[in-house]
Amino acid sequence: MANIKCIGVLTSGGDAPGMNAAIRAVTRAAIFNGIEVKGIMRGYKGLIFDEIVPFKTNSVSNIIHQGGTVLKTARSKEFQTPEGRQIAYEALQREGIDAMVVIGGDGSLTGARIFAQEFNFPIVGLPGTIDNDLLGTDLTIGYDTALNTIMQAVDKIRDTASSHERLFFIEVMGRECGFLALNGAIASGAEAAIIPEMMMQQDQLADLISNGFRKSKNSSLVLVTEGDITGGAMAMAERVKTEYPQYDVRVTILGHVQRGGSPTANDRILASRMGAAAIDALLDGQRNVMIGIQNDEIVYVPFSKAIKKNKPIQQNLVDTLRILSI
Amino acid sequence: MANIKCIGVLTSGGDAPGMNAAIRAVTRAAIFNGIEVKGIMRGYKGLIFDEIVPFKTNSVSNIIHQGGTVLKTARSKEFQTPEGRQIAYEALQREGIDAMVVIGGDGSLTGARIFAQEFNFPIVGLPGTIDNDLLGTDLTIGYDTALNTIMQAVDKIRDTASSHERLFFIEVMGRECGFLALNGAIASGAEAAIIPEMMMQQDQLADLISNGFRKSKNSSLVLVTEGDITGGAMAMAERVKTEYPQYDVRVTILGHVQRGGSPTANDRILASRMGAAAIDALLDGQRNVMIGIQNDEIVYVPFSKAIKKNKPIQQNLVDTLRILSI
Amino acid sequence: MANIKCIGVLTSGGDAPGMNAAIRAVTRAAIFNGIEVKGIMRGYKGLIFDEIVPFKTNSVSNIIHQGGTVLKTARSKEFQTPEGRQIAYEALQREGIDAMVVIGGDGSLTGARIFAQEFNFPIVGLPGTIDNDLLGTDLTIGYDTALNTIMQAVDKIRDTASSHERLFFIEVMGRECGFLALNGAIASGAEAAIIPEMMMQQDQLADLISNGFRKSKNSSLVLVTEGDITGGAMAMAERVKTEYPQYDVRVTILGHVQRGGSPTANDRILASRMGAAAIDALLDGQRNVMIGIQNDEIVYVPFSKAIKKNKPIQQNLVDTLRILSI
Amino acid sequence: MANIKCIGVLTSGGDAPGMNAAIRAVTRAAIFNGIEVKGIMRGYKGLIFDEIVPFKTNSVSNIIHQGGTVLKTARSKEFQTPEGRQIAYEALQREGIDAMVVIGGDGSLTGARIFAQEFNFPIVGLPGTIDNDLLGTDLTIGYDTALNTIMQAVDKIRDTASSHERLFFIEVMGRECGFLALNGAIASGAEAAIIPEMMMQQDQLADLISNGFRKSKNSSLVLVTEGDITGGAMAMAERVKTEYPQYDVRVTILGHVQRGGSPTANDRILASRMGAAAIDALLDGQRNVMIGIQNDEIVYVPFSKAIKKNKPIQQNLVDTLRILSI
Repeated sequence: MANIKCIGVLTSGGDAPGMNAAIRAVTRAAIFNGIEVKGIMRGYKGLIFDEIVPFKTNSVSNIIHQGGTVLKTARSKEFQTPEGRQIAYEALQREGIDAMVVIGGDGSLTGARIFAQEFNFPIVGLPGTIDNDLLGTDLTIGYDTALNTIMQAVDKIRDTASSHERLFFIEVMGRECGFLALNGAIASGAEAAIIPEMMMQQDQLADLISNGFRKSKNSSLVLVTEGDITGGAMAMAERVKTEYPQYDVRVTILGHVQRGGSPTANDRILASRMGAAAIDALLDGQRNVMIGIQNDEIVYVPFSKAIKKNKPIQQNLVDTLRILSI
Repeated sequence: MANIKCIGVLTSGGDAPGMNAAIRAVTRAAIFNGIEVKGIMRGYKGLIFDEIVPFKTNSVSNIIHQGGTVLKTARSKEFQTPEGRQIAYEALQREGIDAMVVIGGDGSLTGARIFAQEFNFPIVGLPGTIDNDLLGTDLTIGYDTALNTIMQAVDKIRDTASSHERLFFIEVMGRECGFLALNGAIASGAEAAIIPEMMMQQDQLADLISNGFRKSKNSSLVLVTEGDITGGAMAMAERVKTEYPQYDVRVTILGHVQRGGSPTANDRILASRMGAAAIDALLDGQRNVMIGIQNDEIVYVPFSKAIKKNKPIQQNLVDTLRILSI
Repeated sequence: MANIKCIGVLTSGGDAPGMNAAIRAVTRAAIFNGIEVKGIMRGYKGLIFDEIVPFKTNSVSNIIHQGGTVLKTARSKEFQTPEGRQIAYEALQREGIDAMVVIGGDGSLTGARIFAQEFNFPIVGLPGTIDNDLLGTDLTIGYDTALNTIMQAVDKIRDTASSHERLFFIEVMGRECGFLALNGAIASGAEAAIIPEMMMQQDQLADLISNGFRKSKNSSLVLVTEGDITGGAMAMAERVKTEYPQYDVRVTILGHVQRGGSPTANDRILASRMGAAAIDALLDGQRNVMIGIQNDEIVYVPFSKAIKKNKPIQQNLVDTLRILSI
Repeated sequence: MANIKCIGVLTSGGDAPGMNAAIRAVTRAAIFNGIEVKGIMRGYKGLIFDEIVPFKTNSVSNIIHQGGTVLKTARSKEFQTPEGRQIAYEALQREGIDAMVVIGGDGSLTGARIFAQEFNFPIVGLPGTIDNDLLGTDLTIGYDTALNTIMQAVDKIRDTASSHERLFFIEVMGRECGFLALNGAIASGAEAAIIPEMMMQQDQLADLISNGFRKSKNSSLVLVTEGDITGGAMAMAERVKTEYPQYDVRVTILGHVQRGGSPTANDRILASRMGAAAIDALLDGQRNVMIGIQNDEIVYVPFSKAIKKNKPIQQNLVDTLRILSI
C-alpha cells in the first residue's frame, strides 16, 4: 500500500453537476482511511496562488445535492507554462501534499498528465464534464444531469402551441460531441438532432426538411450541438430563413443552464463511487490514471487513453431516434 | 339570471401554463350549473373551420397539471376580417352556442371585443398570458409559472463557475413589459434587469458596468427582456464585445421554454377561480368583460380597459433589486 | 429616523423555505443603510449560548435559492423563562445589538413580543411559516413553496393506476389550519380536503364517501391536515378499513418534505420585500410589529394581532373545490 | 423473419414511469416495420373485457414525458384462472393479434409466461417496475425515476432544521428489495438504509444508533424499505420511542408518489430502446423472453430466469454508504 498521508483535491475547467458529490466522496473516503485532505481552490490557480484549505468531514456536509463546486473552478494560463507548474509543485511540497485528485474534463486531465510526468507526482483523475466526451468510461460526472436539464427544457417547448410549419432549434452543449443532442432528442421525443459527428456525411438540415417534416402535424423540435462544426442554432435559423422561408423558426439557446442544477441520482452515485475509488486507487499505488466506469464496474484508464479524441457516436441511437420520430 | 344553455370555450394566442386548468374550471362550473359546453379548437380558427367538440366533465379530467392547452391555440388571420368573423358567428349559431369564454392575451381579447360588438354576442375573457401585461388584473394566468421557470434557469447558471469578469445575459419574454425580467431578477438574486420601461430613461448597460460590477466578486447575471426595445441578449452581448472587451460574455435565450411546463399552484388556483368566475359572470348577465383579480378578489374588467397598453412597472421592485444586489 | 447602528437577525421555530432569502434581504438592506448586521445562530438559543457572528454582504451570497436557513433554527426552552431572557438581553448588550429582526411563526413571534415588552427592546418580526396561519398578512414566507411541494406530490400520485374504488389519503402540514390541504387540493385537482376548520360542522369523510365517490371513475385523492383535530391520514385509513371495507386505501405522509426545498419565486420575492421592509420599519422607529403583506402592499401588524388564533378558512375556495371536483 | 401482421401491447401491474415511453416505442417501431398495433386497456383485464383499440403513430404523440400509462393498468383476477385466459385467447384471435408485448413487473411477466405456454402464443416482455427486482437486466423501466423522486424528497427533508438528536425515517418502496432504499440513501447523502436483505444478518437500527449517530452533529436521515420484512417506517418509529426515547422521531411515507412523475432521461431512453428491441425480437422469431439491458447492450432473458427471486444487493454500495456517511 502506498504511503500517502495527505492528498489535495481540486476541480478544474467547466463546472459539472456532481462535482460536489465527488469532492465529498474523495474527502470522506480519504479521512476514513486515515489520510488528511486539503481543498485546492479554483483549480490549478489555487496551487499557484496558494489558496489551499484543510478539509474535514463536515467541510463536505450538505453539499452532495448542490450544483457547481465548493472548490470553485477556473482555467489557469499560468499552469500551462513550466514556470507555473514549478510554482504549483513547490506549493504542494510546502503543504505536505503527497498526491492529488483532479476532477475535470479533458483539458484538466491533460494538465494533470503533463504535471504528473514532469514532477513524478501521483495524480488520480475523475471525469467531470457534462459532455461525456472522455474515452475509457461509459459515463462522466455531470452528463446525466445535463441530459435531464435539456430534456426538461424541450418538454416545456413541446407543450406550446403546435402549428404545422413551426421549427424550433434548441442549441445544447457538447463541443465536438453529439451525445447530449442525440440522447436529449430521444429522451424528449424531439424530431431530430443535428450533431457534429454527422456533419461531413450529410446535410442534416436538408434531410430533415425533405423527409421528416412532411409527416408531422405539429411543430418540429430539433436539437443542435453548439459550436463551429454545426454552426449552432442561430446559424441554422438563418439558413432556414433563407432557404426554407415557409417555416416559422424559433430559437432557444440553453447555454450555461446545462452546467448547473442539483445533480441527478445517477450523477451523485457515480461521483460517490468514483470519489471513493480514487482513494482506493491511490492506496493501491495507482497514479496518473483516470477513474472510469465500464459496465457498472470501476476501471482505471491511463490519462493518455482518456483524452484521446473522437469518442464514437452510438449508431444504434441514431437509428432509434429516426424510427421513433416517425 | 341570463338564459344561457350552451357555451363555447377557446384558447387563443400564445400558450400560457394554466390554460388547461382554466378550461377545466370553465367546463365543470358550467356543467355544475346545468350549462352545456363545447370546446372550440385552435382559437378563432376552430370557429371558422368548424373544429368544435362537445366537452363533458371527463373531457377535462387529468389536465389541470399539464402545460399547453388541450384546445390548442393559434393565431387566425381570417378572424381579423369581417368576412371571417361572419363565418365564425354562423358557426356559433349553427352549434347553438349562446356565449363564449375566451382565454388569451391582449390580441385575443381585442378580437373578442370586436366580435362581441359586431354581433352583440356575450363573451367573457380570461387573462391567459405569461407576460402579465393586461390592465385591471394583478395577475394573469401563466405569469407565475413563467417566472418560476426563469428563476430556475438562472439558479442553474449561478451554480456555475464564477470568474470575476464574466457577464451572463439571459433573455426572457415579456414583449414591451419588464415584469418577468424584473421579478425574475429579484427572485433569482441576479445583479440586474434590463427592461423596456427604462430604455428611454437611462443606459442600463452602461450604468450596470460602471456601478454594479465593481463590487461583485463573481459572475454577474443580467436578465434582458426580449424584443426591439431592448434589442435582446444577443445585441447586449455584441455591445459588450465592442465597448467593454474586458468582459467575457455568455448568452442564454430561454425562448419558448417559458411558455410551457406544469403550472404552479398559484396559476392553477388562479385559473380555477377565474374559470368558475367566468360562468358566474355569464349567469349574472355580464358580457364583454375580462375576469380579473385585484387584492385577491374577483373583479370584472371591461375589455377596453384591460387591453389598454402600458402597465406601469413597480418602482419599489426596481429599488428592491438595486438594494439587494449590492 | 431611529438611531440604530447594529441589528441582530435570527430564524426560529420550524423551517420555512424563503427564510434564507429573508436573511439575505435583511442583511443587505441593513448594510445598504449603513447598519451593521450580526447573525444569531439557532434562534433564541444562539442568544443564550452566545452563537453570534458578524454578517457581511457576502455572508448571504448564493443563499437565496436554498431551502432551510443558514442561521439554523431551534426551539429554546431557556428563552421561555425570565432567567433565559435575561441572559439573552445581556448578550445583545454585550454584542452592541440595538434591534432585532426575528423570522418565524407564531411561537417565535410570541417570544419576541414578550421579550420586547420586558426589555423595551426594538424587534421587527417577519412571518416565516409554511402554515400561513398568521393574521394581518395575506401570505407568510414558505407557504407558497410548501403548497407547490404538496401539489407536485399529489400530481405524481394521480399519475398512477386508477381503479374505481381506490382511496388515497395524503397527509399534509398545517396544524390547526387547513390552508395547505384546501389549496393543495384545488391546485392538484384532488377530490377533497379534510380540514380542521370543518371538523365540528360535518363528518367530512362520510360526506365524501356518500357524495363524491359515486361519480368518480378513477381513484380518489383526499388531502388531510395533520394533527389531533382531524386525526391525520392514518386514522382516516383505519376508519375506512372498518367502516367502508369496499375501498382499497393508500396512505402518503409527506412530513418534513414540506418544510424544505428551494423556495418558489413568490416566496423569494415576498421574503426579499419583507426583509427590506423590516429595515425600513426599524429606521422608521417602528418596533414590536410584524411585517405583513396585504393587497400586495407592505403593512405593519402589531405582534398581538398577528398571533391571535383562528385565521378563517376561505369559504369561496371550499365551494370552488366542490364544484371543480364533480 | 417471423410473419407478424398485428401486435397487441399492454401494461400490467403497478405503474412505472417510462411505461408511456415504452408504449410509444413499441407502437412506432411496429408501424415502422409495417406491423399493425392494437392497444389493450387495463392490462389483462382489457383482453377479457374486450377493451382493445387501434393504435396509430399519433396515438402515442406527446406521451413520452407523461407518468402513468395511457393504456391504464390493473391487476386481473380473471386472468389467473384457465377460464379467464381462454377468454383472453379468444379475444386475441378475434382481433387478429399475432403477438403481444407485455410491459410490467414480475407478476405480469409470470402471467405472460403461463399464457404463452398454454396457448403457444408469442409474447415479449418489457421490465416495467420501479423496484428493479427483475433478474437478467441491469435496469428496469421506472427505477431511475423513482430513485430520483426519493432523492429529491430526502433533499428537502435535509434542508430542515437540524437538531442533534432528531431521527427521520423515510419509508420507500421496493417490496423485498432494498435497491431504492440503498441507492436513495447514497444519492441523498442519508445516514443509513434499512433494507430487507440485511434483516437476517444484523439489527440495523441498533447498529445505527450505536455507531452512526454519535458522530453526526445534525439530524439523521434513514431510508427504510416498506413491507413486512423491515416493518416499515412506522414500526421503526415505534421501536425508537420505546428503546431510544432520547431521540425525537419524524416519519415520512412517500407511498405512491414514487410511482408517478415525468420519467427521467434514462428511463425514457431505456424504454425507447427496449420498446424498439421488442419489435426486433418478435421479427427475429423470439418469443417468451423479456428484453433486458446488460452492460448497455440489449439482451433477451427467458421469462423463467427474469422472475426468479432474490436479486442480490450490491455489497460495494453498502460499503460506499457506510464510508461516505461518516
